[in-house]
Amino acid sequence: MKQKIVPDRYQVVPRTLCFITHGDDVLLLRGAPDKKIWPDQYNGVGGHVRPGEDVRTAARREIREETGLTVRDLRLRGVINIPVDPEGTGILLFVFTAAAEGRDVRPSEEGTPEWVPVDAVEGLDVVEDLPILLPRLLSMGPDEPPFFALYTYDEDGNLVVTYAPPTA
Amino acid sequence: MKQKIVPDRYQVVPRTLCFITHGDDVLLLRGAPDKKIWPDQYNGVGGHVRPGEDVRTAARREIREETGLTVRDLRLRGVINIPVDPEGTGILLFVFTAAAEGRDVRPSEEGTPEWVPVDAVEGLDVVEDLPILLPRLLSMGPDEPPFFALYTYDEDGNLVVTYAPPTA
Repeated sequence: MKQKIVPDRYQVVPRTLCFITHGDDVLLLRGAPDKKIWPDQYNGVGGHVRPGEDVRTAARREIREETGLTVRDLRLRGVINIPVDPEGTGILLFVFTAAAEGRDVRPSEEGTPEWVPVDAVEGLDVVEDLPILLPRLLSMGPDEPPFFALYTYDEDGNLVVTYAPPTA
Repeated sequence: MKQKIVPDRYQVVPRTLCFITHGDDVLLLRGAPDKKIWPDQYNGVGGHVRPGEDVRTAARREIREETGLTVRDLRLRGVINIPVDPEGTGILLFVFTAAAEGRDVRPSEEGTPEWVPVDAVEGLDVVEDLPILLPRLLSMGPDEPPFFALYTYDEDGNLVVTYAPPTA
């Protein structure tokens, strides 16, 4: 028997986000100036998951489309629930890391990929969660299991990140 | 700036599914006879993710609600994309494993939890993907990263599982 959708349940748009490293540099995408979301801001590489692909394959496709790169060690590092709309729609963000074989990248209509030394990231205009995410991701061990988090916003509109308690 | 939903994107209902072990037994939930989905069939323990919780916390809540158990080693083992409706809605299934501290369980309106010796599972009326999932989950090493899969159905309505290529 096929799976069924139960109506009126919380639904999410699944997205991938990958931080690709090469030596001490991380690849950030500077959003195109005409993007609806985050114009001109720097973020990792990613996009929407499609119906006909698994989530890691979606991450790999977005990397190829937005940078031209082939990567290795594409690992899931975190799963973040972002309940955007109080009516019951959200984003489920799958955060990956990967290592690039080379440095040749090309732009797409989504934006321009740029290699940035990790210690120079804080000087850039980045998306709001990048200063929280990136240090955590870069400090994770190779076999460390993914973290689970929830994004909410306080009364002043500031991002609040709540992590799942560690696996006991 | 807050995150925004982009309309007309593939949306999924996020769900958890956990297989809890104790010694050589696995805990399966026999679905209540009046359940809309899978009445009287055996499955792992889980349910829907809510807007205000991260995915692992959702798995832990469902385990508590449906069995009364406290578990340790609650680990993500797989992420499965199930594009149910060709119009663009699916299920995103987070598969976990966990170890139970004890064997005392209690039923809920969802069904009755039963400890089943792993080698007796094949004699039960289980949900369609359990014979594929369970052996894979039970053979995974403690630090093995989660798998990524896509469920589709062939012309005869049989489940086809496609796994992401291994991380290179």
